[in-house]
Amino acid sequence: MMRAINIYNPGKVSVGAGCIEQLANDVLVCGIKKVFLITVSAVLKDIDPVISSIKKNGVEVEMAVDLPGEPTFGDFEGLLKKASGFKTDCVVGIGGGSIMDVAKIVAVLIDSDQKLKDVVGIGLLTGRKTKLFCAPTTSGTGSEMSPNSILLDESDNSKKGIISPFLVPDYVYIDPVLTIGLPSNITAFTGVDALTHCIEAYCNKNAHPVVDAFAMEGITLIAGSLENAVLNGDDVEARTNLAIGSMYGGMCLGPVNTAAVHAMAYPLGSEYHIAHGLSNALLLPYVMEFNLDANYQRYADVAVALGAGEGNDDIETAQNGILILKNLLKRCGVPSSMKELGVEESKITQMAQSALKVTRLMMNNLKEISLDDAITIYKNAY
Amino acid sequence: MMRAINIYNPGKVSVGAGCIEQLANDVLVCGIKKVFLITVSAVLKDIDPVISSIKKNGVEVEMAVDLPGEPTFGDFEGLLKKASGFKTDCVVGIGGGSIMDVAKIVAVLIDSDQKLKDVVGIGLLTGRKTKLFCAPTTSGTGSEMSPNSILLDESDNSKKGIISPFLVPDYVYIDPVLTIGLPSNITAFTGVDALTHCIEAYCNKNAHPVVDAFAMEGITLIAGSLENAVLNGDDVEARTNLAIGSMYGGMCLGPVNTAAVHAMAYPLGSEYHIAHGLSNALLLPYVMEFNLDANYQRYADVAVALGAGEGNDDIETAQNGILILKNLLKRCGVPSSMKELGVEESKITQMAQSALKVTRLMMNNLKEISLDDAITIYKNAY
Repeated sequence: MMRAINIYNPGKVSVGAGCIEQLANDVLVCGIKKVFLITVSAVLKDIDPVISSIKKNGVEVEMAVDLPGEPTFGDFEGLLKKASGFKTDCVVGIGGGSIMDVAKIVAVLIDSDQKLKDVVGIGLLTGRKTKLFCAPTTSGTGSEMSPNSILLDESDNSKKGIISPFLVPDYVYIDPVLTIGLPSNITAFTGVDALTHCIEAYCNKNAHPVVDAFAMEGITLIAGSLENAVLNGDDVEARTNLAIGSMYGGMCLGPVNTAAVHAMAYPLGSEYHIAHGLSNALLLPYVMEFNLDANYQRYADVAVALGAGEGNDDIETAQNGILILKNLLKRCGVPSSMKELGVEESKITQMAQSALKVTRLMMNNLKEISLDDAITIYKNAY
Repeated sequence: MMRAINIYNPGKVSVGAGCIEQLANDVLVCGIKKVFLITVSAVLKDIDPVISSIKKNGVEVEMAVDLPGEPTFGDFEGLLKKASGFKTDCVVGIGGGSIMDVAKIVAVLIDSDQKLKDVVGIGLLTGRKTKLFCAPTTSGTGSEMSPNSILLDESDNSKKGIISPFLVPDYVYIDPVLTIGLPSNITAFTGVDALTHCIEAYCNKNAHPVVDAFAMEGITLIAGSLENAVLNGDDVEARTNLAIGSMYGGMCLGPVNTAAVHAMAYPLGSEYHIAHGLSNALLLPYVMEFNLDANYQRYADVAVALGAGEGNDDIETAQNGILILKNLLKRCGVPSSMKELGVEESKITQMAQSALKVTRLMMNNLKEISLDDAITIYKNAY
C-alpha cells in the first residue's frame, strides 16, 4: 500500500514571463512595512521596476547584493545581522540556490530564539514569523519550492542541511525572464542540477507515485529544452520549460529528496568549490550506471523521458538513457571528468568517506553504497 | 508566449491511507482551542479516533453532521450561526464537495464584516482569519485543493460560485480510506466529476502547460482506476489512484477551471437535484462531441490518456476517446440519458438559457455556445 506523504507548498506560486511584477502588490496586501531583499547584481536591472513599485507603496527596502560563493554559515550570520538591524518584517530572496537558501534561513531565524547550529538537521525549526518571498534566477535548485536550505559550515568544511516545512516560502515567482541573462555554462550546470533532482527522486528507495508524476514532468521538460536554452539563452520558451522543470524538481525535494549523486557531489563543492550543478553532472551518469541493476524499469522510464529510444527490454532502454544523458551533457558543453577540473585522484578516498557521512541522502539511494563502491564511482567519474 | 498563472496551494497536503491521523497533531501545533467540525455520518466511525485525539489534547470540538443535499445559502447561514455561537478558531470540513464547500465559506466569513451576498463572484473576499482544514470523503470535487465554493441560492434557484484564494484550505488530508465505504454509484458519479475537471481544464480556451500536466495525470489515474473502484469499493489501490486523480482535478480548478459541461450541469442540479457528478457524466460526451473540431489534437491527447487506441489521425483518435469514455461510463453503471432521470424535454430551452448565464465557465469553452447549440447538446444528452 502506498505510504502517506506530506507535501508542503508555498501559498502562492506564480509561473510565467513577467510574473515577478506581482511581488510589489503581494507585499502591500500582506501589510509589510520593511522588505529585506537579498539578490544578485545580474538581475538588478530586471527587478528595478518591482523595487520602485514596492517603495512607491511606502514600503522601505534594504538590500544585500551578491554572495562571494556558495553560502556559508558566516555569510548567513552577516546577513542576519544586517536584516536584524533593519528590523525587517519580510525577507525576499531573488537569486540562485545560494541566495534563496540563505534568505530562507534569515527569514526563519530573524525573530527566533534558535541559533543556526541548533537547527541543522531535519525538522528542528520551531516556526517562522517573518514573511518569505522567493524568486529563482536560475533553473536548477528548486529551492523556491523546497523545505531545504544547504549552507557550508566553515568549521568542518562540509555542507549542512537545514530541513523544515517552515523553510517553504509564502510567495514564489517563477519568472523565466529572470533567467534570460544567465551564461550558457551556468544554464547547463543548474539545469543538470534540476534534472538530477527529478531523476534521483524517481529512482529512489522512497519514491512515491505523487512525486513520480512531478519527476517525470520535470525530466521531460528539462531534457527537451536544456540544449536550446544553453545554445540560445534568449529562447523564452526553452527558458520557461526549464524554469517549470526546475520547479517540479524542487517539488521532489521535500517529500522524497535526492540520493547518492547529491551526497557525492557535496565534497566536490566543499573541497574544490566546483559549482553544485556541475558536481552533480560529473557524477550523475556514473551513479546511474552503478544503480541500474537495482531497478531497470525505473531507469528505463527515465530513459524514455530523456528522449531515448526503447530497447528490446528495460535493461537496454535504461542503458540507452545513460548514453543519451552523456550525449546531452556533451552537447551542452558540460565537462565530463573530475580530472579536467583539477580534482586530485589522491583525494578520492577522503571524498568517498565524506560522502558516506551524508546519510540523510545516502539512505535514499536504490543500492547501498560501500566505501569501495563510492571510490569506484568517483574513479569512473574521474 | 506562455501567459503567467497563479497557483494557490494549501500549505500542507497529506496524501495516502491513514493520513487523516495527522489532523489532531496539526490542530495542536496551530495552537487551536476550538474546532468546529462539519462532516458526514458515513465517516464518523473512521474519524472517531482523530476526534478523540483532538479532545485528549484539550481542544474543544463542536460538530455539525450531514447536510440535507447540495449546500444552500440557508445551510450556510445555519452553520455560520452555530459556529459563531461556539466561537471557533478553526473550521474542519470532512466530507464531499458539499461539506467542504460550505466549511470553506464558514471559515472565511465567521470573523468577517462581509456577508455571503457580498462575496458571490470572483476575488471579492478580503481575507480569512480562521484556520481551515479539509479532507475529502469522495474522489470527485477537488474542493480541498481549489479556491472555489459553490452554493445553491434559493432566491433564484441557481448555483452561485464564490471564488477566492482565501478559500484554499491551510491543511488538506487526502486519505483514500475515508472513501472506502462510498457506494458504487456515488463512486462513479464523483469520479466522473473529477475526470470532467481534468478534461475541461485540458480542453479549455485558457489551458496552461502547468495545469495540462496536472490534468493529464488526473485523467490517466481516474480512467485507469474508476471501474475497479466502482466494482470493488475495498480496492485501496484503486481508491488511492482516484483520490490522487481527484486532487489533480482540484488543482486544475483554480488556475484554469472548467467549461461548458459544468455550466450545463448546474441546471440539472438546481432543477432536478441530480447529483453534480451525474449531471456532468450525462453531458460530458456530448459537449466533447460538440467541441471536438475546435481542437482535435487536445481531444486526441485526452483520448490516449483515457486509454483509447491511436487512430490514423487526431480526428480518429479523438473520436475513439469519446467512444471509450461512453463505454467506461456504461461499465460503471452511470445512467446515459437525461430522460431516464425524469428530466422533462419541455424544460430544455429554459435549462439552456440558465446554463448560458454561467459566463464565468462558458467563457472557457473551446467553442462559443449559442442558445441553439446548448439546446442541441441537451437534446443529444436527452
